Amino acid sequence: MTGDELDRLCINTLRFLAVDMVQQANSGHPGMPLGAAPMAYALWSRFLRHAPADPAWIDRDRFVLSAGHGSALLYALLHMTGYEQMTLDQLKRFRQWQSLTPGHPESHLVRGVEASTGPLGQGVGNALGMAIAEAHLAARYNRPGHGVIDHHTYVLASDGDMMEGVQAEAASLAGHLRLGKLIVLYDANGVTLSGTTSIAFSEEVGARYRAYGWHVQRVDDGNDLAAITRAIETARDAKDQPSLIAVRTVIGFGAPDVQGKFAAHGAPLGPDEVKKTKANLGWPEAPAFHIPEPALAHMRAAIERGATAEDGWRRRFDAYRAAFPALATELERRFRHELPAGWDANLPEFPADAKGTATRKASEGVLQALAQAVPELVGGSGDLDPSTYTWMKQDGDFESPDRPRDGAQGTVGGGWGYGGRNIHFGIREHAMGAAINGLAYHGGFIPFGATFLVFSDYMRPPIRLAAIARLPAIWVFTHDSIAVGEDGPTHEAVEQTLALRAIPNLVVLRPADANETRVAWQIAVERTDGPTALVLTRQHVPTLDRAVYAPAEGVRQGAYVLNPAERDPDLILIGTGSEVGLLVAAEPRLRDHGVRPRIVSMPSWELFAAQREDDRARVLPPEIIARLAVEAGTAIGWERWIGDGGDVISVDRFGASAPGAVVMEHYGFTVDNVVERALALHRRQS
Amino acid sequence: MTGDELDRLCINTLRFLAVDMVQQANSGHPGMPLGAAPMAYALWSRFLRHAPADPAWIDRDRFVLSAGHGSALLYALLHMTGYEQMTLDQLKRFRQWQSLTPGHPESHLVRGVEASTGPLGQGVGNALGMAIAEAHLAARYNRPGHGVIDHHTYVLASDGDMMEGVQAEAASLAGHLRLGKLIVLYDANGVTLSGTTSIAFSEEVGARYRAYGWHVQRVDDGNDLAAITRAIETARDAKDQPSLIAVRTVIGFGAPDVQGKFAAHGAPLGPDEVKKTKANLGWPEAPAFHIPEPALAHMRAAIERGATAEDGWRRRFDAYRAAFPALATELERRFRHELPAGWDANLPEFPADAKGTATRKASEGVLQALAQAVPELVGGSGDLDPSTYTWMKQDGDFESPDRPRDGAQGTVGGGWGYGGRNIHFGIREHAMGAAINGLAYHGGFIPFGATFLVFSDYMRPPIRLAAIARLPAIWVFTHDSIAVGEDGPTHEAVEQTLALRAIPNLVVLRPADANETRVAWQIAVERTDGPTALVLTRQHVPTLDRAVYAPAEGVRQGAYVLNPAERDPDLILIGTGSEVGLLVAAEPRLRDHGVRPRIVSMPSWELFAAQREDDRARVLPPEIIARLAVEAGTAIGWERWIGDGGDVISVDRFGASAPGAVVMEHYGFTVDNVVERALALHRRQS
Repeated sequence: MTGDELDRLCINTLRFLAVDMVQQANSGHPGMPLGAAPMAYALWSRFLRHAPADPAWIDRDRFVLSAGHGSALLYALLHMTGYEQMTLDQLKRFRQWQSLTPGHPESHLVRGVEASTGPLGQGVGNALGMAIAEAHLAARYNRPGHGVIDHHTYVLASDGDMMEGVQAEAASLAGHLRLGKLIVLYDANGVTLSGTTSIAFSEEVGARYRAYGWHVQRVDDGNDLAAITRAIETARDAKDQPSLIAVRTVIGFGAPDVQGKFAAHGAPLGPDEVKKTKANLGWPEAPAFHIPEPALAHMRAAIERGATAEDGWRRRFDAYRAAFPALATELERRFRHELPAGWDANLPEFPADAKGTATRKASEGVLQALAQAVPELVGGSGDLDPSTYTWMKQDGDFESPDRPRDGAQGTVGGGWGYGGRNIHFGIREHAMGAAINGLAYHGGFIPFGATFLVFSDYMRPPIRLAAIARLPAIWVFTHDSIAVGEDGPTHEAVEQTLALRAIPNLVVLRPADANETRVAWQIAVERTDGPTALVLTRQHVPTLDRAVYAPAEGVRQGAYVLNPAERDPDLILIGTGSEVGLLVAAEPRLRDHGVRPRIVSMPSWELFAAQREDDRARVLPPEIIARLAVEAGTAIGWERWIGDGGDVISVDRFGASAPGAVVMEHYGFTVDNVVERALALHRRQS
Repeated sequence: MTGDELDRLCINTLRFLAVDMVQQANSGHPGMPLGAAPMAYALWSRFLRHAPADPAWIDRDRFVLSAGHGSALLYALLHMTGYEQMTLDQLKRFRQWQSLTPGHPESHLVRGVEASTGPLGQGVGNALGMAIAEAHLAARYNRPGHGVIDHHTYVLASDGDMMEGVQAEAASLAGHLRLGKLIVLYDANGVTLSGTTSIAFSEEVGARYRAYGWHVQRVDDGNDLAAITRAIETARDAKDQPSLIAVRTVIGFGAPDVQGKFAAHGAPLGPDEVKKTKANLGWPEAPAFHIPEPALAHMRAAIERGATAEDGWRRRFDAYRAAFPALATELERRFRHELPAGWDANLPEFPADAKGTATRKASEGVLQALAQAVPELVGGSGDLDPSTYTWMKQDGDFESPDRPRDGAQGTVGGGWGYGGRNIHFGIREHAMGAAINGLAYHGGFIPFGATFLVFSDYMRPPIRLAAIARLPAIWVFTHDSIAVGEDGPTHEAVEQTLALRAIPNLVVLRPADANETRVAWQIAVERTDGPTALVLTRQHVPTLDRAVYAPAEGVRQGAYVLNPAERDPDLILIGTGSEVGLLVAAEPRLRDHGVRPRIVSMPSWELFAAQREDDRARVLPPEIIARLAVEAGTAIGWERWIGDGGDVISVDRFGASAPGAVVMEHYGFTVDNVVERALALHRRQS
């Protein structure tokens, strides 16, 4: 068999494994694997440096299937290159209950799947984050003669990816950052779910990417392995620009009746067409899941090749460790998701202060201390650092070392090149979210991204994906209510906190004061199996006197009693964030009325819900049915905590433009109103 | 005074009105108005065809301030050109409680404000929708010699707009559609909130827009009125391409200490800098809000000019009415937001059917009937029509008449040019949302957009803005739960329905069967003061026998009793959408156990919450505390309806990839489980 024949055999094996998987499941997307198998094969067999026997090798190349609907192709690649988990049986259980071959790739389920994809465009953003991660670690840890971090990030993207805004944002930023090790293979088959792309998409993608500063190539025949190979080589040589390789393919290639048609996109070919396709490409009709021995042997060589590459790397890393033991230890620690010893020893304790400080400002203080101790903390904002206070001031900007920055304002510190930890995402919240996920997927990072709470709406898809993929990502959302004031309803969060709470496996924390903010950050940094959202105020809130009130560590339980000395309360006041201060101020007034309130700070529904029932009952005793919740957000969901006998002061309409204090007053967030509503509740119950 | 001097006087008047507004409010964004006043003035004084005395004139040009933070400039323009509401007193009350001059423009408050903007990028998407609206109405209603619809859509956009993905999506589609009457003035001041754009944004915006198919010009000096004017003229002449005019400006122009700096972006100049700026530009230091008489006279000529233009148009329209009375009547009716007589006479009634049909499929049937009767119903999907079933099959595609569509698949019908009503948005959910809003802003439309429910996350910002701006937009969200099955967690909605319910002024409807789907569509089409989301199944659900169960018109109350004959229920089963079928199936089984259930279908929390308390009590009598809610989504918020004694079968984790029925079974959505949980609840209560 010639080399060309063997290549074709391998490619057709990938194709028909995918076709048979989809057919067996009677569900899935055969068209993309049929068209894109050659480029995937070229990449995986000739370039991708990975170790199937050790999918977690830290210096492996990353491959992101942004076109996640082509999952069957990825699973076929993993099987053929020898990933142990990805057995033939798993391929046969494609899209079945508890298989490792779900409809779209899920990184937390399957080793070798680098990112959970499917929602289009996300993978390009993830890859941006991975390329940032590689560039940053290389800048921080490599030393002359010791290139221990040196890998590429490859993406396989579809026409659909190219239409999504998140992709556009990510590509613009990748071009700005000159991330030369990011290479996108664009499977340009000209067909999407509903038709040919010509009905909605006629831009020149290559020209657009050139405008972003990318290196752009085109391959006119998706079956031309040599051309694809040359293009990838050229892309790798373009070291100071990310690369796009647009490969013209035919969706459903080889399927006589549907190739090039949208019918090939998202439905099984059906038994007849499978038969015809196999005949057409010279493939045996039966059995399904046929794997020719030469193809398997050829592709399984990836195991040996990967082991050799990893061994070579390990020797280099050993030499590095000998020369730079502290760096090596730190790098390995980062990839183990272990925090450094004493990481939280120097976090600020905030003294009691009636005027207090905004929790965004307290967050800034905590972040500075964390940044000193936790080098894996890397992040930035969507052009809002002067407002979100998320600059790490002792560090520098993450930027291309080659980009002149004459007269640039708004930088933290220049000259750090890719070693800087402050990422300027620009006004690109969605790509920021996807890139933060990419940093987390890559490993070695506790990444964070910041914007105003209301703009969490711009980045819900990546927040959700972080929760699905169990990524330790941190979102810092400031300006968290109608107290934003003058900017008005478009900038005032009302429903966002609830909408975040609704995402499974996302921990939402809305701390009440500076010290709760510190604990909230600690929780976020410690979390390893899912993302955390910090919801912070723009305006000042009092820093509670912890000699009087319970320690802020209560945040860890999600909700805690601020005034446990009151052992016989008549009612419970429950607040979160900025509204806790109102409850505290209402307490003496209620006592004047002969009413004894318990005050509960409830920064996190999720953490509280995760407590044992009796622990919850100690905070919210079932016998006390008079409960008033106060939160400057929608009332929806508060019934869970206040019960049928409760009341809630909330915001169930949009905000308004006026000074923040004026808006808060008009919306009922005053001590007077809290006292009044609490007294009414007490009267009603007694 | 020469013409140039008068122009400069007018421009400086706009500048200093804005500066004084921000200073008086001690809050706002002075930098953009100082830099962009010349281009705004050029546009408003030399091109914008509007009638300040009749802001609702249907053939006016539309102006969208996508850079909504520059609101002070827009309010100054409205005042100077004679919009009656926009008094000097309102300018002085900038950003104050209940003023007409909120921090960001709010279209429902202020006549002359065409779109509620502020969240960046949205305005470009809105303008895409407005340009689609104009092109469509022109194609549908104009007749030779009778050009009654002929206006432009102008946008003033900022660097921030140019970074947002929604803008990229919208611009790509606008280029594809060759919307020649869309003209974007890009205020390229190179500065954003956190610094110079050079720290995050170095793409060539003009080249990118050329790649989209736009006509692109550049003006190097934002104070060069003649150059700006020529560029707008040239842009208007480019009739088969949308136009971008990148105007290089200086943020905070004229403010000696902050111009060109990010300090000029979002904070008042302060008294000293205001003084210096006025001195620098030859403006009297006092009084604030100084308006030179010649400037006012010159700009107020817009009233007369507008009246003349509108009069001319009215004469043309009268002639049109005489020649085409039915068309004229229909066009005017559309702009009055009145539905045609008998619009709902021919909607389908669906016969009882145990196997039933998917509510997305029922929706398709209803939509076909609606489309026949309601020509203002125009919309499309984000590349999902074969799945969302939102094609209007008797109509054609909205497309450029000039674009060849050889071999295009997935079209409904070609040859309709801009007269087609099916808009192919491509895989651009966010721009779809913003464009749907634009159609609604424009007037004359009941626009709809469709995608999978889980991808509502990609378009939450425009959904929220539709609710803020009270737009009659309709979102069709299909594939509404884990029953989607094989596509897995990334494609299975869990928290989305709740997250939508949390948006104030959005009506969310999750109909239980085909007939409820009809009523849901009726409600959506009738709504004039806010958006509606229809949440529909992928899978079949039984069509209830309305001879046995209560009429589907109960949907209008948000929740209704399906089996009112049961007058002495032991417990209440509450369901929405696909889960109502489970309750109906459980009923006889519960009766076998001697338990009498009331079955409540609750398609809309919002509509039910809006009922009078006693009406609600007739559906959910307070004395029946045994209530079981069943919904394939998060449990959060259900406590409001089930109370402390209730239970809920819900999905409080992510979905899974397997056949839909398998997933539903594993997650507890079976008749057995409903019966078991209902019996347990009944035992506990009795």
